[in-house]
Amino acid sequence: MKQFTSVKDVPDVKALLKLTQEVKAAPYEHQATGKNKTLGLLFFNPSLRTRLSTQRAAMNLGMNVMVMNLNSDGWAIEMDDGTIMDQGSQEHIREAAAVISQYCEIIGIRTFPSLTNREKDYKEEVLKKFIRHAQVPVVSLESATLHPLQSLADLLTIEEQKKVERPKLVLSWAPHPKALPQAVANSFVEWMKAAEADLVISNPPGFDLAPELTKGVPIIHDQKKAFTGADFIYTKNWSSFSNYGKVDTGLSSWMIDAEKMSWTNQGKFMHCLPVRRNVVVADEVIDSAASLVLEQANNRTYAAQAVLLKMLQNER
Amino acid sequence: MKQFTSVKDVPDVKALLKLTQEVKAAPYEHQATGKNKTLGLLFFNPSLRTRLSTQRAAMNLGMNVMVMNLNSDGWAIEMDDGTIMDQGSQEHIREAAAVISQYCEIIGIRTFPSLTNREKDYKEEVLKKFIRHAQVPVVSLESATLHPLQSLADLLTIEEQKKVERPKLVLSWAPHPKALPQAVANSFVEWMKAAEADLVISNPPGFDLAPELTKGVPIIHDQKKAFTGADFIYTKNWSSFSNYGKVDTGLSSWMIDAEKMSWTNQGKFMHCLPVRRNVVVADEVIDSAASLVLEQANNRTYAAQAVLLKMLQNER
Amino acid sequence: MKQFTSVKDVPDVKALLKLTQEVKAAPYEHQATGKNKTLGLLFFNPSLRTRLSTQRAAMNLGMNVMVMNLNSDGWAIEMDDGTIMDQGSQEHIREAAAVISQYCEIIGIRTFPSLTNREKDYKEEVLKKFIRHAQVPVVSLESATLHPLQSLADLLTIEEQKKVERPKLVLSWAPHPKALPQAVANSFVEWMKAAEADLVISNPPGFDLAPELTKGVPIIHDQKKAFTGADFIYTKNWSSFSNYGKVDTGLSSWMIDAEKMSWTNQGKFMHCLPVRRNVVVADEVIDSAASLVLEQANNRTYAAQAVLLKMLQNER
Repeated sequence: MKQFTSVKDVPDVKALLKLTQEVKAAPYEHQATGKNKTLGLLFFNPSLRTRLSTQRAAMNLGMNVMVMNLNSDGWAIEMDDGTIMDQGSQEHIREAAAVISQYCEIIGIRTFPSLTNREKDYKEEVLKKFIRHAQVPVVSLESATLHPLQSLADLLTIEEQKKVERPKLVLSWAPHPKALPQAVANSFVEWMKAAEADLVISNPPGFDLAPELTKGVPIIHDQKKAFTGADFIYTKNWSSFSNYGKVDTGLSSWMIDAEKMSWTNQGKFMHCLPVRRNVVVADEVIDSAASLVLEQANNRTYAAQAVLLKMLQNER
Repeated sequence: MKQFTSVKDVPDVKALLKLTQEVKAAPYEHQATGKNKTLGLLFFNPSLRTRLSTQRAAMNLGMNVMVMNLNSDGWAIEMDDGTIMDQGSQEHIREAAAVISQYCEIIGIRTFPSLTNREKDYKEEVLKKFIRHAQVPVVSLESATLHPLQSLADLLTIEEQKKVERPKLVLSWAPHPKALPQAVANSFVEWMKAAEADLVISNPPGFDLAPELTKGVPIIHDQKKAFTGADFIYTKNWSSFSNYGKVDTGLSSWMIDAEKMSWTNQGKFMHCLPVRRNVVVADEVIDSAASLVLEQANNRTYAAQAVLLKMLQNER
Repeated sequence: MKQFTSVKDVPDVKALLKLTQEVKAAPYEHQATGKNKTLGLLFFNPSLRTRLSTQRAAMNLGMNVMVMNLNSDGWAIEMDDGTIMDQGSQEHIREAAAVISQYCEIIGIRTFPSLTNREKDYKEEVLKKFIRHAQVPVVSLESATLHPLQSLADLLTIEEQKKVERPKLVLSWAPHPKALPQAVANSFVEWMKAAEADLVISNPPGFDLAPELTKGVPIIHDQKKAFTGADFIYTKNWSSFSNYGKVDTGLSSWMIDAEKMSWTNQGKFMHCLPVRRNVVVADEVIDSAASLVLEQANNRTYAAQAVLLKMLQNER
């Protein structure tokens, strides 16, 4: 595996899911594979779960880890080609990516969207440029439009928790005071389409995700109708795709509470975290036995570990 | 040991002191115990000694270490329950503590007081909430009102340096331009009461520590009287407890200098560092042979190592 | 080796160069030497290559690494002796250096110049004070006036790439919008004078480096004349030494482009990075086969590894 940025980078999702289960069952089995190999984790944006779980995954594999907050620890990075760099930026992404490749066998990078320039964000310019100039495999730690490590962890959680072969999943839009990326939602759709599940999306008008991603997935604006018979409710806010990056603060009724969960088939509650309590979800739901948020967080380690292991095994 | 936040968490202080001496004598003996175990160090506040000595302690034990500056690396944390999180905070301490527990076998956390709300600070709300929601042992790296790793290192230093079975210790208040926590002073009192020592406290009127902590310890407002016959002078500034968080800049005469040290029984000088030279202590004292500040700093490693080892040995 | 701050700390440059080649050929040979030893990396300033390559070097040697951004992670440091520390600084460099020595076998420190006080910068006050109070070997990660790890990596790169026994090297001043240190240029001069090479310096009037460093090295203000017959062009901006710290923005014609490279003897292009593209060097040169910038960056690891290994071998 040369890059892990989307479900499209995975030749066999079922096999990768099986590998996450294997590394979870025996996390320290592959330390000879990781010995003397280094993972570089680069953050342009805040991170808690991704930062710690991916470090843990690498250490479980016997790897060394180096963490860098690119904005504060290093130099301001220029993304555009051909620029005369006489302004704020001090180092070009061409050099940054290639140089970091000299010190690491694998690089992970987090780079959030602008939420102002949709075309640029959806082209994944930063991530793609980084990968083009990196000389080693690159793992997305959440890019402008996708968060594949989260989705793989979610898939593992659903696999562990499902009671029927083909569960019904609802991706339910949530209220939020600030503009958030569409990455987790996009990524969940992409991965669940590749899994054995019946996925529906429920969101208010004006908050449909990118049409080319949701093709074939029912979008139901009536939340109650969507929730009926659901086995899993995956809640997440995202800002508008059509009115790009915009927020609507008049939609607080979309919060998940106990009544809404009662519409489901004793459904489980999922969220990728961090979550704003009593805005996105009521305390009564996230604190209930139906909540899988900690299982999801725990599975982040094994999702990352499976991906890193694949990369180590057919490394340069 | 499930938590290390106070001397009250230690069933046998003498045995723990002995363990610090053992790990100091043979620091790399227990690497099999720490193998594949991870310590997560979380800082809400600056740290030099604690940051480095606790990392070193964990590495001596063969553990992996992950360090996170919570304010800058992650998300703004909500501490209050039941809040509608539609303002600045992005993640609740319930999730933060529980999630970090998925990736670490032990968590260390530093959280300073407000110095404005005495009741809240002395309830140790942040630390206690963190512990309540963490699922692994928690080590205080200095909390709102106590700094037990410092005190254990101080106890080891006194044990190594004392010339009589039961030395006389003076905790002497020092001048300082800014409001500092009472944590180091409180903690020193708490631990020395549990040790074989005669403790007196010397501070100006208006700077008595919390009465329930100092019960049974003489408080002497005359510094010369307090110092007479002392074997160890432990100097530290703290802001007022009664007039909570207040500073008095007219008390520079409380600084420790050579003349004051001459009042003692060839006493040793101690301070936890960082220290403001020529405000808290004169160069002539901290640079003299009587100064134990580097020994104290060195012993921080072995204090942390003993505590981590106890936690590893009866871990989940 | 007790310190590595300048070529003057190296008793035998040729032997050290040979050691860099040996560790590059077999990077994991000395892990028994580094076991249970810790490198502390302290940054007062940004760093990418130095941060990552020096970590990698230490991990290759089996060492543990602790990284600290001194300005943000710890306390504000006082540099002056005898000060009454009642202002902003919270910890004196005497304690900081001595305390960090308790937790590390080797310390690396980066400290940039003021570019306002030439005398102070050229006395290397911060680095020298740190070394005076440290109790373990200290590696410069770039000081006010020198960057020896960069120069050793450059020397290795030239050794690997040269086609004649004694190549002609040109250190060529470059335009830059902001005031930069003279450290890389000074250091290159110092090391190349100790190597088997013919060095000339080419810079505009007003940008001559410190006379005592360049003694014996031709300074040619005509760039074309300097480049004729050159085997290596090492480009770097530095601010004025004589008009200390000043920038001249009217000198953009000093940028390296393909035409200038054509004046050389099929010369190779070198730069320490980070580099401002199309200000210091045109894309057509840095992206050409003649560019050695990635080789230089890669060799940073082995330069650091050789120095750390020397220090480990005659450690306390």
